[in-house]
Amino acid sequence: MPAWTLEQVAQHNTSKSCWVIIQNNVYDVTEFLPEHPGGPKIILKYAGRDATAAYEPIHPPDALEKNLPLSKHLGPISAQATQILTSSQQNKRKTKDEQRVEEVAGRKPPLQRILSLRDIEVVARRTLSSKAKAYYTSAADDEIAYDENARAFARFFFNARVMRPVARCDPSTHILGFKSSIPVFVSGAALAKLGHPDGKYSTKYYAAQITAHSGEANITKGAAQTGIIQMVSSNASLSYSSIMEAAAPKQTVFFQLYKHRKDSIAEERIREVDRLGYKAIFLTVDAIVAGNRERDIRNPWEAEDEEKGSPTYWSEAEAPQEVDGMGTAGALIANDDRDMTWEKTIPWLRSVTKLPIVIKGIQCVEDAVLAAEAGVDGILLSNHGGRQLEYSMPPLEVLYKLRQQHPEVFHKLEVYIDGGVYRGTDVVKALCLGAKAVGLGRSFLYAQSVYGVVGVVKLVQILRREIITAMRLLGAASVDDLCPGMVERVDWQPRLPAKL
Amino acid sequence: MPAWTLEQVAQHNTSKSCWVIIQNNVYDVTEFLPEHPGGPKIILKYAGRDATAAYEPIHPPDALEKNLPLSKHLGPISAQATQILTSSQQNKRKTKDEQRVEEVAGRKPPLQRILSLRDIEVVARRTLSSKAKAYYTSAADDEIAYDENARAFARFFFNARVMRPVARCDPSTHILGFKSSIPVFVSGAALAKLGHPDGKYSTKYYAAQITAHSGEANITKGAAQTGIIQMVSSNASLSYSSIMEAAAPKQTVFFQLYKHRKDSIAEERIREVDRLGYKAIFLTVDAIVAGNRERDIRNPWEAEDEEKGSPTYWSEAEAPQEVDGMGTAGALIANDDRDMTWEKTIPWLRSVTKLPIVIKGIQCVEDAVLAAEAGVDGILLSNHGGRQLEYSMPPLEVLYKLRQQHPEVFHKLEVYIDGGVYRGTDVVKALCLGAKAVGLGRSFLYAQSVYGVVGVVKLVQILRREIITAMRLLGAASVDDLCPGMVERVDWQPRLPAKL
Amino acid sequence: MPAWTLEQVAQHNTSKSCWVIIQNNVYDVTEFLPEHPGGPKIILKYAGRDATAAYEPIHPPDALEKNLPLSKHLGPISAQATQILTSSQQNKRKTKDEQRVEEVAGRKPPLQRILSLRDIEVVARRTLSSKAKAYYTSAADDEIAYDENARAFARFFFNARVMRPVARCDPSTHILGFKSSIPVFVSGAALAKLGHPDGKYSTKYYAAQITAHSGEANITKGAAQTGIIQMVSSNASLSYSSIMEAAAPKQTVFFQLYKHRKDSIAEERIREVDRLGYKAIFLTVDAIVAGNRERDIRNPWEAEDEEKGSPTYWSEAEAPQEVDGMGTAGALIANDDRDMTWEKTIPWLRSVTKLPIVIKGIQCVEDAVLAAEAGVDGILLSNHGGRQLEYSMPPLEVLYKLRQQHPEVFHKLEVYIDGGVYRGTDVVKALCLGAKAVGLGRSFLYAQSVYGVVGVVKLVQILRREIITAMRLLGAASVDDLCPGMVERVDWQPRLPAKL
Amino acid sequence: MPAWTLEQVAQHNTSKSCWVIIQNNVYDVTEFLPEHPGGPKIILKYAGRDATAAYEPIHPPDALEKNLPLSKHLGPISAQATQILTSSQQNKRKTKDEQRVEEVAGRKPPLQRILSLRDIEVVARRTLSSKAKAYYTSAADDEIAYDENARAFARFFFNARVMRPVARCDPSTHILGFKSSIPVFVSGAALAKLGHPDGKYSTKYYAAQITAHSGEANITKGAAQTGIIQMVSSNASLSYSSIMEAAAPKQTVFFQLYKHRKDSIAEERIREVDRLGYKAIFLTVDAIVAGNRERDIRNPWEAEDEEKGSPTYWSEAEAPQEVDGMGTAGALIANDDRDMTWEKTIPWLRSVTKLPIVIKGIQCVEDAVLAAEAGVDGILLSNHGGRQLEYSMPPLEVLYKLRQQHPEVFHKLEVYIDGGVYRGTDVVKALCLGAKAVGLGRSFLYAQSVYGVVGVVKLVQILRREIITAMRLLGAASVDDLCPGMVERVDWQPRLPAKL
Repeated sequence: MPAWTLEQVAQHNTSKSCWVIIQNNVYDVTEFLPEHPGGPKIILKYAGRDATAAYEPIHPPDALEKNLPLSKHLGPISAQATQILTSSQQNKRKTKDEQRVEEVAGRKPPLQRILSLRDIEVVARRTLSSKAKAYYTSAADDEIAYDENARAFARFFFNARVMRPVARCDPSTHILGFKSSIPVFVSGAALAKLGHPDGKYSTKYYAAQITAHSGEANITKGAAQTGIIQMVSSNASLSYSSIMEAAAPKQTVFFQLYKHRKDSIAEERIREVDRLGYKAIFLTVDAIVAGNRERDIRNPWEAEDEEKGSPTYWSEAEAPQEVDGMGTAGALIANDDRDMTWEKTIPWLRSVTKLPIVIKGIQCVEDAVLAAEAGVDGILLSNHGGRQLEYSMPPLEVLYKLRQQHPEVFHKLEVYIDGGVYRGTDVVKALCLGAKAVGLGRSFLYAQSVYGVVGVVKLVQILRREIITAMRLLGAASVDDLCPGMVERVDWQPRLPAKL
Repeated sequence: MPAWTLEQVAQHNTSKSCWVIIQNNVYDVTEFLPEHPGGPKIILKYAGRDATAAYEPIHPPDALEKNLPLSKHLGPISAQATQILTSSQQNKRKTKDEQRVEEVAGRKPPLQRILSLRDIEVVARRTLSSKAKAYYTSAADDEIAYDENARAFARFFFNARVMRPVARCDPSTHILGFKSSIPVFVSGAALAKLGHPDGKYSTKYYAAQITAHSGEANITKGAAQTGIIQMVSSNASLSYSSIMEAAAPKQTVFFQLYKHRKDSIAEERIREVDRLGYKAIFLTVDAIVAGNRERDIRNPWEAEDEEKGSPTYWSEAEAPQEVDGMGTAGALIANDDRDMTWEKTIPWLRSVTKLPIVIKGIQCVEDAVLAAEAGVDGILLSNHGGRQLEYSMPPLEVLYKLRQQHPEVFHKLEVYIDGGVYRGTDVVKALCLGAKAVGLGRSFLYAQSVYGVVGVVKLVQILRREIITAMRLLGAASVDDLCPGMVERVDWQPRLPAKL
Repeated sequence: MPAWTLEQVAQHNTSKSCWVIIQNNVYDVTEFLPEHPGGPKIILKYAGRDATAAYEPIHPPDALEKNLPLSKHLGPISAQATQILTSSQQNKRKTKDEQRVEEVAGRKPPLQRILSLRDIEVVARRTLSSKAKAYYTSAADDEIAYDENARAFARFFFNARVMRPVARCDPSTHILGFKSSIPVFVSGAALAKLGHPDGKYSTKYYAAQITAHSGEANITKGAAQTGIIQMVSSNASLSYSSIMEAAAPKQTVFFQLYKHRKDSIAEERIREVDRLGYKAIFLTVDAIVAGNRERDIRNPWEAEDEEKGSPTYWSEAEAPQEVDGMGTAGALIANDDRDMTWEKTIPWLRSVTKLPIVIKGIQCVEDAVLAAEAGVDGILLSNHGGRQLEYSMPPLEVLYKLRQQHPEVFHKLEVYIDGGVYRGTDVVKALCLGAKAVGLGRSFLYAQSVYGVVGVVKLVQILRREIITAMRLLGAASVDDLCPGMVERVDWQPRLPAKL
Repeated sequence: MPAWTLEQVAQHNTSKSCWVIIQNNVYDVTEFLPEHPGGPKIILKYAGRDATAAYEPIHPPDALEKNLPLSKHLGPISAQATQILTSSQQNKRKTKDEQRVEEVAGRKPPLQRILSLRDIEVVARRTLSSKAKAYYTSAADDEIAYDENARAFARFFFNARVMRPVARCDPSTHILGFKSSIPVFVSGAALAKLGHPDGKYSTKYYAAQITAHSGEANITKGAAQTGIIQMVSSNASLSYSSIMEAAAPKQTVFFQLYKHRKDSIAEERIREVDRLGYKAIFLTVDAIVAGNRERDIRNPWEAEDEEKGSPTYWSEAEAPQEVDGMGTAGALIANDDRDMTWEKTIPWLRSVTKLPIVIKGIQCVEDAVLAAEAGVDGILLSNHGGRQLEYSMPPLEVLYKLRQQHPEVFHKLEVYIDGGVYRGTDVVKALCLGAKAVGLGRSFLYAQSVYGVVGVVKLVQILRREIITAMRLLGAASVDDLCPGMVERVDWQPRLPAKL
């Protein structure tokens, strides 16, 4: 197989014959176009050209192998072509956003000055690329569900107990039987590489932390160092195997399953992660279609306007046309199963794997009861961080009602919760109400994006310190001491810090 | 009949003999002065002069024929007079507001970048003439009822159901037996031409959309293209017949009746729209007198101040005098029936027409029950978009209480709701609580004002996408799947985006 | 009696012998010093000097006759002395605040542009002297009670009734048997002259309205023109007789009694107003000591700082000392009765006058019941406009609870309410809950201060229009149609316009 | 013992041999290093050098004697060394914060213009050193508990009673049998010297107030002058004996005990204060570990950045490391007892002292009941001013629930409350609900910091005036007249002044 010239590739620039270059290799994606989850249009933009920069941060490295038959891997470009692309990449004018990111990267506060998860988020919002920030922070519609997830915690106050021995205080617990140093886990979140693509803007120390596996692997390593469990998304930007390679021996990792509409493809995915050593399946049920994340959808337009220095106005030549505006989220789940049912899907899943099954995305008491009846091992009360159904009930409120109306559910399966968690007190409140553990998604993305592995470690250290302080001041020496009587839902809404 | 000179007309410039020129024709309105709904004063301002610019945007073209005996139509002005008026019109210095409108018209964002109804409203508020903006946006007193209509929706959260098959999801419904592609209709709103008078500030593309029938007709055409139903106001700025001319064959159009105090005049109006093919009568009962819309009343003063460049101060010569300050709204309904009753008005209406009758403006549970007893076909829970009685209970709260206290009403007639609707989730919440469909008024005015027919189409497309997304994420494959258990009234008030 | 020279007067400038000049007459106030309600200090500041400017705006003209034995009226100063004082007055440098007031006086918006009571208040706050503004607007402590009075109204929404005949709508009522054109009266408020001292800043038209009796008399005349009832404060800045002189024949005027600690002095005052034709006694019971009105207390310091152009800082020579900080309010009521009781005071009052007796300042349900048992003719639910006890329950909430818990009270006496009323809807809400009429205090002060008599007339016209509109849209043709079912207390707090 | 030279001392600058100079005396602290509550690091920073400036404001003068064996007191430095240090101190460049403090010190408003506790706090926040401000104002996490303590008071409104004799009104009470002029006491608060270290920035008058015993002693003297009771913290910056020396004869002073983990050390401390004449022991139970006070922890970094004129950024050389970030609070309580129990600690305390025992830091109804069962003399409902457990229930809410659920507790022991008190009305509300007295901590620190003894006196005068006014307007002539019916918890949250 001879090496391709750029001119040869350039001739295949239509939907009839569409080739692209990715990492100096040529691929014929003509037949793949209609199957691409993100739609053919975005690929055709790069037809006959180098697509590496657009492809890399949002696809796992094995995406091509998994989705494109080997016969369509047409081989490398020529050395001269490689040189041209490299030099062109180097000479490429940086966008204003790239310049900004580069400029602020050297101005991060030292990790020692990071006191809270909010501190981490503030730095992340200042230093992330606009694309990563838009994807990570966006939520559905007007972001009410997102905001209310956090505000719900503020309506629960403590009835703290005093005069109890707490000199020794142990915040550890077990999740599905696996040890966790604190009752916190990494909730699945897609595209970690988007925030932490490589080391080019990093200081020397920071760069030293980065291995071939950045993105999700940063979280994997930080979780190993701190003894907590990571749930890896189906839409991770690293391959499932490379994440496991980054894991420590015997490290517990869970898998968040986005079920493909074709059972066979879904089964293949499950068998792969089972084989790789993932320890549980979190079946995602709250994201069968993409939420309306306007911040994410608007981002490319705003980037374009910033580049131009002026907004795009109504142009005379322009004919209105329907735009589907799916954003990044829509592309990721375009092929997911929208017809799952308790009767069909759970038995099928049990037939495919022996791993524990957790339903991720339970949003009301009724479905928690159904899940218990369906015999799953756990439920994660979650509205996807407010990214899916706007005005979905805050998970903490669902947990509170579940505790009041169906306390027996907590004996039948493990109940987790995620969304809106910023503080150790938030975690402790959820545990008082019966949660076994609490998941965080965005915070881990922010931490690894800004500070890499040590950022993840720092995040867990902060939570650990806050959880222990809260437990001691609450009169609890272990998680078993936390009980419903220690929290009380109040009938007013405290003043909270401004929304970030 | 000879053509009139400007000098001849100019002699009739008093209340004793008052002539005006409208579209190059002369009318003797002397006897009409006391009957003019907007009062004689505004007409006398133009006595003996050309009144076209003031007359046109707020009157339907057939207003003169309907209200003025043919004997008072005195015939055309002379060619020379026409030329003078035209040239004078062309040479007229533009007001600052006209200049502003012209300037911003070229800076509208392209329709593709419009993601939400709020986006449309933002653009409209920036690009409308101050008069149109004041009339469209104004609401009663301190605009509390207006604001609370929308805020009420934010107190209803979803109990979303998962694991239900929703790959196929159909948001269509029937309203009074007529098919609607989504459970949304255009609620009657007056004076659409005010926002979209003609094409002079438009881009080429936009201008091409404008036919002889702009204003309400834009909405009619957009409704036809998207399969929804329009309710046309008695106070439309186009004649009822010209709106029907703009309609597609078999397109369903409803009529919003402002009942004249004289039954005979009201009957004539009903028979006309019945004849024209309107399919239902929405009898307006919440606007028997004008609400106190200060924004609308203040507008001419502010416009005057802006023109002068300084506010008007207390002047020594000035003697205080009572000003009725009715605003545009007051003028429109000055002759409406303020003595309607269930016992008298409904039987009369039934005697006049076979069309379905809906009561528009029910504001409490008790009247909903009375309406069911009176045997009407539907009720529209509405407080006129907060434009009439300040502190009128938000329609969604009325709907919620009606559902709880009198669920049987929903079996006796169809219940609709309007006011404060911005999102697909709002529509879905109302349907969960028992509403058959949801009306929007201002949003359609904004959409047609800014983008014409395609703006109306876009608005419906946005709502359709949002409704389907919400239904799927809620576990509903059709509107019949939506039920009260899916929404829950919460005891806190979420943080909402800033008031526009 | 010879005319005094300034030198002669100047020798009596100590507490041993203290003379002051007021309106070119000399008074020996040595023995009066300890009795002065405002304390001796403020008088001694003017000992041996002309005190007219300080005395006039806060004392009724007959204050000297009533409080100082004739023997202490020492007679006029000499013609030359008069000339010196006049010329000195004319040459006096204006304070910055006087300059500001003079400057803005010519920039008031014309009365026709005043649409609401809020509009009037906005103008008043801009145009009043800082002293008048501080006295009128100030309220207790952090002004929570003041603010909550108004915010309470916003928690009551209407259940509006439709299809009721309201073409004829009559908002008139009777208060203690006296006709009132609308269910609104002027609640007693002190020191009206402070805001409207004379005509020097007025336009010609405005000046023409001003007679010898400005201040409270402006309100008297405006009330006469509009058919409402005024309650005159014991602390009016005009004498009770001169107010009655300003009244129209048969005009109803009530009297607000601040009871002196000496029954004999109080009795004398009651007999005087009875004789003058006042028609009822409103006994003030919520102001036995002055509330803590910091805005009022701070005003002279801020005025002083403004004059100097810099704030006063801690000075080395300064020895800390207790300052009583009574403000204007403290001075006015220093001699009032702090030991009134139901058992003692009501029978005494009945023994002194045959006039109807109303208790002004009832702040809880229990005392409303006690008042009914004590057989008084009416109660005014009021917390003195939030000027007295901070966190006193908003009157509307007291009214609401009284209606629910003791509806029989409304049959035993008439119930009124004041505090926080800005709109016709506020008035109508109170009437729905059982109030016979609603009082306004500050708004009338603002109106007469800014626009004189015509301002008062305008205020009533606005309220009348708003009340009728609200009644019609609510389905009420007369005040008797207003009933509790038409309002509903909601469990949320609407967004209100910013505090003025 | 010869006098040491600076050179000699300088040789002992390691953890092997660590000497420091404090007030011109040399101490060998080598063996003390591991026992230092604030950790060895902060001492080592001054090893071989003068540590006076860092030591003095946060340690009582007898700290060295109490904690360091006499054998480690190595004696004075030489006269020449003293001269060098003095001159070096004098020539030391002032930090920007010191310059700011010095500059604003001369611009304090005169005490007469201070009308409220809020006024005092405003001045304090402007004039304190950044270190003192950070320590005094900081609270846990996001300062929600701190903020809610105050906001809770705003949800309680008065049902004021009228027509009750209140000319004579006595606000005095007894606390644990000791007379108090008003129902207010000084709640224990550490490190008063931090805000009021000496007289160097003061005016002449102010300086004259300062004796050898500033800090806590200012409060002691102010309390004596006004007849209220001070509770002195274990962590006072003056020795317990010197505070008692500042006290007037027979003045009542209480002691706030932070119990050392070693009973013997704790016992020694109790016996000392008993001997010194302290009249009660307030055992602190809500601060067994330090709360997370980020404002306090951040302060040195911000000071450092301000000095440099730029923030510290991520540096290449910097290796992330765990920082414990205890802040000032952590250091103070590092050796406190974290294993106290009702069964063990109360009997032990009773065995050690005959003084009345009050538990400070009860945060829920259940523990109030347990305290009554344990037979203590009183409980102080407190969450440590929001400085310890974030989201600890506001004390006023705990008081309210205790009153409703366990009214018998108020007969078994005295109940106090602190946290969030700014106004006389706050005090009166707590008394209505059953509190015997109300504690204030920060306000006294602010008052003594800014104005010394006279500031403390002023603060009590303000509260006294406000309490009497509130009592009179509420219809109460003595504290015994205050009863639960006079307050009512409302279901809305008033608008409060902005957070300071």
